[in-house]
Amino acid sequence: MAGVATPVVNRRDLDFLLFEWLRLEELLERPRFSDHAAEEIRSIVQLVERVAEQELAPHLRASDLDEPRLDPEGQVRVLPDVARAVRTIAEAGIFGSAFDTDLGGSQLPNLVHVACLGLLMGGSISASSFMLLTVANARLIVTYGTPRQITAFAQPQVAGSTLGTMCLSEPHAGSSLADIRTRAVADGEDEFGPRYRLFGAKMWISAGDHDVTDNIVHLVLAKTEGPDGMLAEGTRGASLFIVPKVLPDGSRNDIVVAGLNHKMGYRALPNCALNFGEGATRPFGQGGAVGWRVGDVGQGLPQMFQMMNEARISVGLGGAMLAYRGYLLSLDYARNRVQGRPPGVHAGEQVAIIQHADVRRMLLAQKCYAEGALALVLYCARLLDEAETAPSAEARAAAANLLSLLTPVTKSWPSEWAQISLHHAIQIHGGAGYTRDFDVELLYRDNRLNPIHEGTTGIQAIDLVGRKIRRDRGEGFQNLLRPRIEATLRGARSAPGLEREANALQRVWTDISQAVTKLQQGEAQDALAHATAFLEALGHGVVGWLWLDQAVLCRDATLHERGRPDASFRAGKLRACRYFSEFELPKIAGWLAPLMAGARVVMDAPPEEFVGD
Amino acid sequence: MAGVATPVVNRRDLDFLLFEWLRLEELLERPRFSDHAAEEIRSIVQLVERVAEQELAPHLRASDLDEPRLDPEGQVRVLPDVARAVRTIAEAGIFGSAFDTDLGGSQLPNLVHVACLGLLMGGSISASSFMLLTVANARLIVTYGTPRQITAFAQPQVAGSTLGTMCLSEPHAGSSLADIRTRAVADGEDEFGPRYRLFGAKMWISAGDHDVTDNIVHLVLAKTEGPDGMLAEGTRGASLFIVPKVLPDGSRNDIVVAGLNHKMGYRALPNCALNFGEGATRPFGQGGAVGWRVGDVGQGLPQMFQMMNEARISVGLGGAMLAYRGYLLSLDYARNRVQGRPPGVHAGEQVAIIQHADVRRMLLAQKCYAEGALALVLYCARLLDEAETAPSAEARAAAANLLSLLTPVTKSWPSEWAQISLHHAIQIHGGAGYTRDFDVELLYRDNRLNPIHEGTTGIQAIDLVGRKIRRDRGEGFQNLLRPRIEATLRGARSAPGLEREANALQRVWTDISQAVTKLQQGEAQDALAHATAFLEALGHGVVGWLWLDQAVLCRDATLHERGRPDASFRAGKLRACRYFSEFELPKIAGWLAPLMAGARVVMDAPPEEFVGD
Repeated sequence: MAGVATPVVNRRDLDFLLFEWLRLEELLERPRFSDHAAEEIRSIVQLVERVAEQELAPHLRASDLDEPRLDPEGQVRVLPDVARAVRTIAEAGIFGSAFDTDLGGSQLPNLVHVACLGLLMGGSISASSFMLLTVANARLIVTYGTPRQITAFAQPQVAGSTLGTMCLSEPHAGSSLADIRTRAVADGEDEFGPRYRLFGAKMWISAGDHDVTDNIVHLVLAKTEGPDGMLAEGTRGASLFIVPKVLPDGSRNDIVVAGLNHKMGYRALPNCALNFGEGATRPFGQGGAVGWRVGDVGQGLPQMFQMMNEARISVGLGGAMLAYRGYLLSLDYARNRVQGRPPGVHAGEQVAIIQHADVRRMLLAQKCYAEGALALVLYCARLLDEAETAPSAEARAAAANLLSLLTPVTKSWPSEWAQISLHHAIQIHGGAGYTRDFDVELLYRDNRLNPIHEGTTGIQAIDLVGRKIRRDRGEGFQNLLRPRIEATLRGARSAPGLEREANALQRVWTDISQAVTKLQQGEAQDALAHATAFLEALGHGVVGWLWLDQAVLCRDATLHERGRPDASFRAGKLRACRYFSEFELPKIAGWLAPLMAGARVVMDAPPEEFVGD
Repeated sequence: MAGVATPVVNRRDLDFLLFEWLRLEELLERPRFSDHAAEEIRSIVQLVERVAEQELAPHLRASDLDEPRLDPEGQVRVLPDVARAVRTIAEAGIFGSAFDTDLGGSQLPNLVHVACLGLLMGGSISASSFMLLTVANARLIVTYGTPRQITAFAQPQVAGSTLGTMCLSEPHAGSSLADIRTRAVADGEDEFGPRYRLFGAKMWISAGDHDVTDNIVHLVLAKTEGPDGMLAEGTRGASLFIVPKVLPDGSRNDIVVAGLNHKMGYRALPNCALNFGEGATRPFGQGGAVGWRVGDVGQGLPQMFQMMNEARISVGLGGAMLAYRGYLLSLDYARNRVQGRPPGVHAGEQVAIIQHADVRRMLLAQKCYAEGALALVLYCARLLDEAETAPSAEARAAAANLLSLLTPVTKSWPSEWAQISLHHAIQIHGGAGYTRDFDVELLYRDNRLNPIHEGTTGIQAIDLVGRKIRRDRGEGFQNLLRPRIEATLRGARSAPGLEREANALQRVWTDISQAVTKLQQGEAQDALAHATAFLEALGHGVVGWLWLDQAVLCRDATLHERGRPDASFRAGKLRACRYFSEFELPKIAGWLAPLMAGARVVMDAPPEEFVGD
């Protein structure tokens, strides 16, 4: 019942998004990608899809039931099938797809890498996250590390022969990284750079230990001591350190797995508490975990934030792909499950439940959320390529600015709406959807992490409203996003049959623009009380725009070539655009209403009133 | 960390709802309840709260980790702590609280029984469901059974010494009970009534087998053979049969546990596939499960529907109480977890996260959902008492009609919004909320069943729109609900400080009334495409009304006695009413927009377009 038979994505849709809508072939004309042709990329996507469906999806349920364990020697063991699948992904060269060829990568566009990661996530989000973390770690070392650091610590990760982590949070410092207490004490310098000894406890470390590869490269955020021997306050003193599990001389570093977190889902991937510098081993004859600083002192958080766009796109991608898989599974179920009859009919054969109005509504909603989320995430991946490879500096800066504005949206909209989408997928399965015999309940549990990690939805909203709308005065919004939406609206108005959708979209963008103005006025605390609702409204506005943009393309194609072989695919896109316009866009006004009315009830409510005496 | 320390409800709120808002003492003046005084009821509530917090909540996590098992002898074993807790509830006399004293019950109002069940659900929804099912079963036998059936099969359930089930669904017939195939073959008559032999497979049977009590009374829906030896089509031939696990002579009936369903949550309660009449035993010398018919042939479904209001109120109650517990747990966490600083502050001590705007918003939303859901469910329980004990036949009929209209709302609104409320509770816990070290993830999994069982949300919407709005021409809506809302609005307009809330509520009810008119026109299939959105809108409208109704009461009390000891409790109610008015009511227009615009995209979408070629 659990579904290898169902694909992880509609390939027709993915190809449409990559090649037609995002014009991947134009990207391939740029010097960085000139070794690649469209056909090759189609083969890569095909290969990765097969890995997802044949190597990952079949072990999804087992990896949930049989969680990672800490063995008596303090070594974390993961399901052998998961370890094997991760090694298969590495051997297929997928870890390195976007890295430079001289680092052992394939130098493909980020867009292709993101599409491949997405396919793997559709098979098993937690198993494919080993790669996600490793790529993020390697990318940071490649960007900020010395040549020797890159060779020793990044290249094995590009090859996937060593995996990586990001060790940021501590038990008392989750969202507030300025408050970390892990201490880095100078310990000279060697071929790998300035050397330190690290002491402290890290929490929530995904892939913090495992037996997939022999070595693990931890990137650890820690504070160096000031001249007074004290740690600096705030974010200034924090730097990033390369702290490998096994040191270059083959000895074990002073790192101990303090425990495993037991999660609601996402279980192929161990999540650890790690202690550094407890004295479990004595590398080079003394206690303290050995680490090499990356870049300058105090640059830890800026370096991380630089990398954050990609990490946040990846989280959104996970949401998109889980929603997508849930959609395909429940579509399949709805076509095959026979139950009940149309209204007014009380006898005769029962019908497939896709014939029932409410089931069809839930499927349309899922199509909008899943395909819309994937479009959003791929659009942002395309912006990442634009920011790195566009011919002019202006175009690169504009893409980077727009991506910065859209990052909180692309992190949170797919994460949150995937949960609602998977809620529908479970409803369509009825009681069966609540059992472990079907995958939708597991996708629902797996996705529940996405609105939390890499900054909760609330943190994304603070980033959006506090930084992008207020601090940067909405520059990315007015100068970059709105003109692009206007262009789509013009396209829609010249394509017959999309006037209603164009008008509806224009209306909501007028509302959103007024909300932006409102948020820029007044006190930060008041604006922040409306930040999450605004994030939600902006997300719906952006996804509504991307739906209309796809619809324009599909409408053009069907107008010019009647009876095309892909007519039903394009008709489905147009239908989904209409659904989003009619059923989803009207929600925006409701979310913005309290902001526009100047509601202050949230911050007016004193904590003691919540229960009350 | 998992929380016995946190109560299952705010007792101040429960007492307010029962005694002040729903005027329980007036109910006690009626002849049926004349043996009871308010003080006694307060003691009962106190006792049940203690059972919930001390006997159920402490085993919540263990009952999730250690699921029911099927032993080699085919007997289901539940966690011994759960079995003990269920027996404790029975010994405390809580099963029988609403039954007549001459059946061994306490003859308390349904309102008190529902409040007690709710407290137990706050401790462990799945463990307390043993009682829920048993009470529903006994109530049906008491209503439709013969005196001998009542003595033999209902009274042991009233005492809680035997537990009961409802065996309705079959593998191919979940929501569509007209299509069941379990066959009942006449087998004479004895002291317990017309006797039959049952043959068939039942699915999704909660408490279908266990070792809590020695015997189990199954109520099984099955079809008798017509004169041609065939089962009748549709619902007409279906009757209910009492099929005990152990027959009155002490022999085992012919019932086999075919398997256990493995659920996402709700795990203290086994869920079984049961086979009847496989020949595993030969009661009275021949194969076939022995059952006695309750009432007339073909009355099975009408009997069940008669009982359904209560079952559906109970599901809504479960949602309300899980939302409530999640609210209290995350409130507690938000007051104690220190993280981050107010906007613009970068140094100094970190603050409790309840100081952050977005956390406070989520807490206010949870307060509105949890307390609002509980108010809705208790209001409906009060209507049930009214329908049974109001002095005049007119008042009884009016209460029954209004309850019938509100039943789909009270089943689905708490179920669905509890899930959103618990989503917030997890967000407030951050990464910790995603682990099994805290209870919020478990409440989230437990509650996920509530939008499914006893009729999915989609089925409730069909009931609301198809029967109550279209078939009954909205009688309950126009003649019963609207006048009550008008009365609250008048009260709000005469209480200073509630004008804005009154105006906002009036506006949404104008919209809802227009939607009702719209739904009554046109084809059923078109109306049904908008049914779930309408159910959601109506739910928000009803809960908004009940919030305003509570606010009027709190406003009156604070106006007349300044400096009351419960001032902060009442101020919190007023604040929550304002939040609901400003943040929640504006959503209604968005949900109703597609209906009002006449959107037909849902039923226009052909199944083949969803993926498309």
